[in-house]
Amino acid sequence: MDKAYIAQLQKLLKADQVSTSASVLAQHARGESYDHSVMPDVVIFPESTEDVQKVMAFAFEHGIAVTPVAVNSSLEGHTVPLHGGISLDVTRMNQVISFRPEDLLIICQPAMTYPQINEHAKRSGLFFPIDPGAHASIGGMISTNASGTMAVRYGVTADYVMGLEIVTPTGEIIQIGTKARKSSSGYNLTKLYCGAEGTLGVITEVTLKLVGLPEALMAARVPFKSISEASQFVISLIQAGVMVARCELVDANSIRAVNKHYQRSYPEEVTIFLEFQGNPLGIEREAETARELAEAMGAVQFEASRDPKARLELWEARHNLYYASVAAEAGKRNMTTDMAVPISKLAEVIETSISLCENQGFKAYAAGHVGDGNFHLLVFFEDGEEPKLDSLNHDLISLALKAGGTSTGEHGVGLRKLKYMAAEHGPALEVMRQIKLALDPKNIMNPGKKIPAKVV
Amino acid sequence: MDKAYIAQLQKLLKADQVSTSASVLAQHARGESYDHSVMPDVVIFPESTEDVQKVMAFAFEHGIAVTPVAVNSSLEGHTVPLHGGISLDVTRMNQVISFRPEDLLIICQPAMTYPQINEHAKRSGLFFPIDPGAHASIGGMISTNASGTMAVRYGVTADYVMGLEIVTPTGEIIQIGTKARKSSSGYNLTKLYCGAEGTLGVITEVTLKLVGLPEALMAARVPFKSISEASQFVISLIQAGVMVARCELVDANSIRAVNKHYQRSYPEEVTIFLEFQGNPLGIEREAETARELAEAMGAVQFEASRDPKARLELWEARHNLYYASVAAEAGKRNMTTDMAVPISKLAEVIETSISLCENQGFKAYAAGHVGDGNFHLLVFFEDGEEPKLDSLNHDLISLALKAGGTSTGEHGVGLRKLKYMAAEHGPALEVMRQIKLALDPKNIMNPGKKIPAKVV
Repeated sequence: MDKAYIAQLQKLLKADQVSTSASVLAQHARGESYDHSVMPDVVIFPESTEDVQKVMAFAFEHGIAVTPVAVNSSLEGHTVPLHGGISLDVTRMNQVISFRPEDLLIICQPAMTYPQINEHAKRSGLFFPIDPGAHASIGGMISTNASGTMAVRYGVTADYVMGLEIVTPTGEIIQIGTKARKSSSGYNLTKLYCGAEGTLGVITEVTLKLVGLPEALMAARVPFKSISEASQFVISLIQAGVMVARCELVDANSIRAVNKHYQRSYPEEVTIFLEFQGNPLGIEREAETARELAEAMGAVQFEASRDPKARLELWEARHNLYYASVAAEAGKRNMTTDMAVPISKLAEVIETSISLCENQGFKAYAAGHVGDGNFHLLVFFEDGEEPKLDSLNHDLISLALKAGGTSTGEHGVGLRKLKYMAAEHGPALEVMRQIKLALDPKNIMNPGKKIPAKVV
Repeated sequence: MDKAYIAQLQKLLKADQVSTSASVLAQHARGESYDHSVMPDVVIFPESTEDVQKVMAFAFEHGIAVTPVAVNSSLEGHTVPLHGGISLDVTRMNQVISFRPEDLLIICQPAMTYPQINEHAKRSGLFFPIDPGAHASIGGMISTNASGTMAVRYGVTADYVMGLEIVTPTGEIIQIGTKARKSSSGYNLTKLYCGAEGTLGVITEVTLKLVGLPEALMAARVPFKSISEASQFVISLIQAGVMVARCELVDANSIRAVNKHYQRSYPEEVTIFLEFQGNPLGIEREAETARELAEAMGAVQFEASRDPKARLELWEARHNLYYASVAAEAGKRNMTTDMAVPISKLAEVIETSISLCENQGFKAYAAGHVGDGNFHLLVFFEDGEEPKLDSLNHDLISLALKAGGTSTGEHGVGLRKLKYMAAEHGPALEVMRQIKLALDPKNIMNPGKKIPAKVV
């Protein structure tokens, strides 16, 4: 495309808001995934909703692709500007607009990260309980419907989004949702924009629900002889009505890597990491119930503590498994999968997945948000193995879909899972396309992501 | 419209699935609201998804309006077949398709009621924690995004809908959502259909998330000298991280009516009804925290118990306020409002609302899901007062919107709130219209509901 439009954009904004410097373009050519990169024509740094509106109205008029980005921690290529055009970097829009502890909500701009939000909220004894790991921006978390280790109790990002301000693909500013804690009014556009991966508009303001910080925490570490036993234990725990706050599975490979890299001696078994949150009496009793259920299921150990230092130690292997496995596979690159399946199928799907990796010669480390049926394989590969890796990815996702699951539990579709959307959604994909076409008639919002073009 | 199409429909289905009897048509002319009624041309009783598809494909071809209905407990005129056409009564589709306790889910047809679902789930120690009051069908609950007394802890219907089978307005069968407990794949159509009030398609199958039944329950009753103190107490309780399961406000008028009708002697004050759910130790401690906070806020009493019989007695006034107020206003009809506002505004909005009612000569009783900022006024009126009532309703909804709230927290828009959608949603209403037009191009699905036509 003719890049003469950039000169016009420069007239709409301040000089430092429009960049075509090679290094800035290169920074915006890709995210954290291993996928290919594409240079945008220009990077724009809006500082307000009005700036975003100017840019979107201009882009709509001229039919220019716009790819929104903030912290850029995406693992799935969401921020790769596939069709060049504008990389719309909202990182300057990172302020709290209004903190209303008496309404248990915070209103902020899209580039605030969730640790920054929590830093703010904790002054009033509140918090936003979604922790996807990377220091992600709230706009990105909403766009992928991110979750993390507390989803088993607190749910996913979408559950906390009360309202959004959006600049639409046609350059209109809309306010969606409400400041009330629930509503049955109008279509639920808020939830439609959660997980839309920037393909339906640009998020310029966010109203988030907050919850009270728990009075006390207790951590536990429970190794099992098999993934199946570990998984059964978790199902029985949830069925028993125990509101466990965190419930993570780490496979034996990962524990071995941690033992080696950090000189530890954890039992080299599949291990469940638990956290209980609540009042001190309540969580003591929950932990006791968990211990009984774990022992009945053949747990190798059950170690638990409320002491802050001991809690960190109990969870150390979970926290450090990424670094340990990267160290164990030094020199290799890695890909992260993100399937989620019905919980009863989780053990079998994880075991089969690891076999599929090993059969094709890839070393894989598994860790999962087991209460949600969501798990990640960290698959290591070397340059040149990408085609084989794609084939493996195909087998893994097919396995999850066959089990009634999804190709992505929390990372989003981005680029690499586009080709599985038809299999996953069937005729519903056409309804999604109708919505995309209705709201973005020129297909300028992050084109080529989330929903595959008709012929794939 | 020419009703010759009915003969064609009779060929598509069994004889007892198509009715034009006057009494059946009259039963399907209105719901539970006081609004006007309109006769459908024909009532159809599908027995399967295939039946629904046949009807929708036919209706799409011929441009015939279709109004879905099941238990018909709507308070907002959702099931009034405004444009005649087909009343699609799915009450025969009321079976469990699959109960999978190991996956904490149940798959059922749309006319199952939530008490029936819970009857089924409790065999495995599970439950579906949404209780809108009337023995509503799950299809209706999804279509209005119903909630009830446990929303403060467990959320709303939409939070439990993992997936849906929908017959679209063009007669396609689509499966949306997933059997995994979370997903970031595709647009979130499931949540879009939650609260769509039958305007985007017909729900033919539902996959619901279940949760573990709590081990123990504790009830409490806490009268306060003012709505403001009562409301402040609830805010402090949630801020303190207490996961109260139910948290209901009942005004002094209602308590007086209960005392009179049932010969009781409850303190005639605004009263908060609490329920704690969890393990016995945890809820004892939660109740203790609640007592401390209530006393600090000037509560008149704090009575609590875990005993089943005592729990019922503690909550009696809450359970019976409807009957008591109807008895107190014998001979009058009533209208229920459904505003929700940011919690910090709740006390002021309730007080102003009651004044507005009294100033216009209406007796009103207030009860609220105070943890959600959602409250209902039961406003009594006599025949001929409808215009004055409409004017009152306008003032009440304007008040809620001005406070940053919504015209409907859980009952849905239906007919009576259509005229407030432009004020509530602003330019976002046009985006809703674009979605409706894209998915229902002939405007045959429950036309005239949820989203007002362009010129209102």
